[in-house]
Amino acid sequence: MSLINGNINESIDILDRGFQYGDGVFETIEVLNGKPLFLDRHLSRLEKGCKNLLIPAPDVVKLTDEALQLSADVSHAVLKLIVTRGTGGRGYRQPSPITPTRVLTLFPFPDFPEYFSTQGISTRFCHHRLASNPPLAKIKHLNRLDQIIARAEWQDESIQEGIMLDYQGQVIEGTMSNLFMVKDSVIYTPILSDCGVAGIVREIIIEIIKQQMLQFYEQKIGIATLLTADEIFVTNSIIGIWPVKQLQEFEYGIGAMTRNLQEKYQAIRLDRKK
Amino acid sequence: MSLINGNINESIDILDRGFQYGDGVFETIEVLNGKPLFLDRHLSRLEKGCKNLLIPAPDVVKLTDEALQLSADVSHAVLKLIVTRGTGGRGYRQPSPITPTRVLTLFPFPDFPEYFSTQGISTRFCHHRLASNPPLAKIKHLNRLDQIIARAEWQDESIQEGIMLDYQGQVIEGTMSNLFMVKDSVIYTPILSDCGVAGIVREIIIEIIKQQMLQFYEQKIGIATLLTADEIFVTNSIIGIWPVKQLQEFEYGIGAMTRNLQEKYQAIRLDRKK
Repeated sequence: MSLINGNINESIDILDRGFQYGDGVFETIEVLNGKPLFLDRHLSRLEKGCKNLLIPAPDVVKLTDEALQLSADVSHAVLKLIVTRGTGGRGYRQPSPITPTRVLTLFPFPDFPEYFSTQGISTRFCHHRLASNPPLAKIKHLNRLDQIIARAEWQDESIQEGIMLDYQGQVIEGTMSNLFMVKDSVIYTPILSDCGVAGIVREIIIEIIKQQMLQFYEQKIGIATLLTADEIFVTNSIIGIWPVKQLQEFEYGIGAMTRNLQEKYQAIRLDRKK
Repeated sequence: MSLINGNINESIDILDRGFQYGDGVFETIEVLNGKPLFLDRHLSRLEKGCKNLLIPAPDVVKLTDEALQLSADVSHAVLKLIVTRGTGGRGYRQPSPITPTRVLTLFPFPDFPEYFSTQGISTRFCHHRLASNPPLAKIKHLNRLDQIIARAEWQDESIQEGIMLDYQGQVIEGTMSNLFMVKDSVIYTPILSDCGVAGIVREIIIEIIKQQMLQFYEQKIGIATLLTADEIFVTNSIIGIWPVKQLQEFEYGIGAMTRNLQEKYQAIRLDRKK
């Protein structure tokens, strides 16, 4: 079920710049009991991304209405929201005026087993690296070939996520998630100034950490630092927080810090669904 | 007029990965007197791009048939050919099996004035840089936000092209073209091992240069080197060869080497249209 610019539709003009060039941004939102969770945060990030790409701010009232319309009577699903620069423009030059396209699509919620959250997941390092490109960093834009190439590196169903590095060998994120690590009760997450996507759950976790006045650094993290962590976990809007029990041949326990953050995040998430 | 997987159609499934992630490659081909020029070279590059992105090789016979079908009775136009990874797959993970989507679209030929070719164009340096990402270098893929951001930097209609640098400050290409320079009768073009698109006209020019046994280097080119060139020109399949008469505040003559290559390229091009 999809809404394109407010109308039920399953196909898009091939001249849309989203299709021609990946010229747009998107959000992936959990829908629970008829409610798109953290919709305000998602719309705010979407707006920021549009601003950075010089796409006129999408109509937040319309997007909210359409998101609620699609989510009504849905118990659990994924809502994907795409905003593109619309059709037109000769080549890369953007059209004037720009009339953005809104596409909202409802997907079934993936059937991840519960034990990914409770017992943790297995991960690997990806060979494919993330290029340093500060103007596009943090934005959840539609140019996703890097993630696709990285995700295509493994078929092994026992590996749930791949960890991506930049070309300097710094740890950045998972192919579909952000990453945190804990060492000696201090929490770290990679700084995303040069590449990576600034996730909504990452943002919420950082807020929880600050409210709890835990020791926390957003900084460069090398491979050796990550491998010697006490706890590692990955986050996104659909999975929430998954502890990492294995990275390559190294094993990790699910520590108190991860459990604490899972609990706090879960409380906020369940509060939102009301 | 468009053909999607062989059928006349103007819209694409929103679940197509071309729209969801820019997960595909494309070609922009000049059609002259019913013939898509250098179609063999374009299809060969498309095939190489698909291989690098792990998209199954598109059916060259079908693509050729469809390209000829759309081009028949057309005197002068642009044929854009897109191949995506098709629909499906959960998130970034590619579907199995992969059923690529073919989209061929005919556009009017842009009304560039003749004097761009004869008297040259004005250009500027773009602020937006190209990120170093070797696995995606040379490929004409659908992740084109860098070119869009760079092209959005200027509105001045007297500037026809923007020259892009990488983050090391090396000259790479134009937003929509490849770049060559001549200094002391030696021809240079940037090496595209880390970023940039390896253009078809660039390939043809290099072949002409080698046939003529002219002195030629594909190498790193810094800004200072480019600015002190005797001749500069940019190339792509639609514009052919445009001499650069101005780059920022510096002026360049249209030298014998540029004229020579324009002539030779034109002869090959016109030979192709027969």
